[in-house]
Amino acid sequence: MSNLVDLETIQPFDVWGDAVRARKVEGERITLAVVELARNAMVPEHRHEAEQVGIVIEGSVTFTIDGETRDLGPGGTWRILSNRPHTVQAGPEGAVAIDVFTPIRADWERYELLAPRPPVWPRQAGTP
Amino acid sequence: MSNLVDLETIQPFDVWGDAVRARKVEGERITLAVVELARNAMVPEHRHEAEQVGIVIEGSVTFTIDGETRDLGPGGTWRILSNRPHTVQAGPEGAVAIDVFTPIRADWERYELLAPRPPVWPRQAGTP
Repeated sequence: MSNLVDLETIQPFDVWGDAVRARKVEGERITLAVVELARNAMVPEHRHEAEQVGIVIEGSVTFTIDGETRDLGPGGTWRILSNRPHTVQAGPEGAVAIDVFTPIRADWERYELLAPRPPVWPRQAGTP
Repeated sequence: MSNLVDLETIQPFDVWGDAVRARKVEGERITLAVVELARNAMVPEHRHEAEQVGIVIEGSVTFTIDGETRDLGPGGTWRILSNRPHTVQAGPEGAVAIDVFTPIRADWERYELLAPRPPVWPRQAGTP
């Protein structure tokens, strides 16, 4: 298996219904996910053992961690230590974010892989 | 310290001379770096204990891991298991990439923080 892969060739899967869709690159200790949030998508409060760090690539989100809330656009970052409660809501145009986790999100292996399709970001040549 | 921070407020530091500049967000176990590579910047072959996964945001790079070489544009990803040799060269327009590491890059703490300045990505309103 190659260690150098284009995002557009990675099969996506749905994390919170089809409003939150991800593609992942995984090592032995890290899961890096490119996450597409639909317009106004809501990820309800949850927590997990894995530490999570992330950044908005496109669009906007409102993020709450441990009671602190901020609106974030491209370049907005978050840091979620193990088992801290967090909530995300996408803005009216949706968002694309990168989320990374350690240890890997083994719980995501239960999600069924969808057929390959163009990612929202980066926009492919010839797509609207 | 806030867990929700805009990239533009994070002080950068130089990793391989001023041709490779980074800003980082760090948890207890993950370092997420937004890395700016100057035009044709060369990161010579190196290796480290930390596992590394990453993705191109803007521009292009030529990546070599363990003897496998690929040209990558936005959405191009890499996965570097612990202690595997790797080399990167930025393309003629430079690149912005996200690199994540676990455990954290404690060795980066020796780098002096530079004065805040606008990141290459995301482009700030009003900058060329």
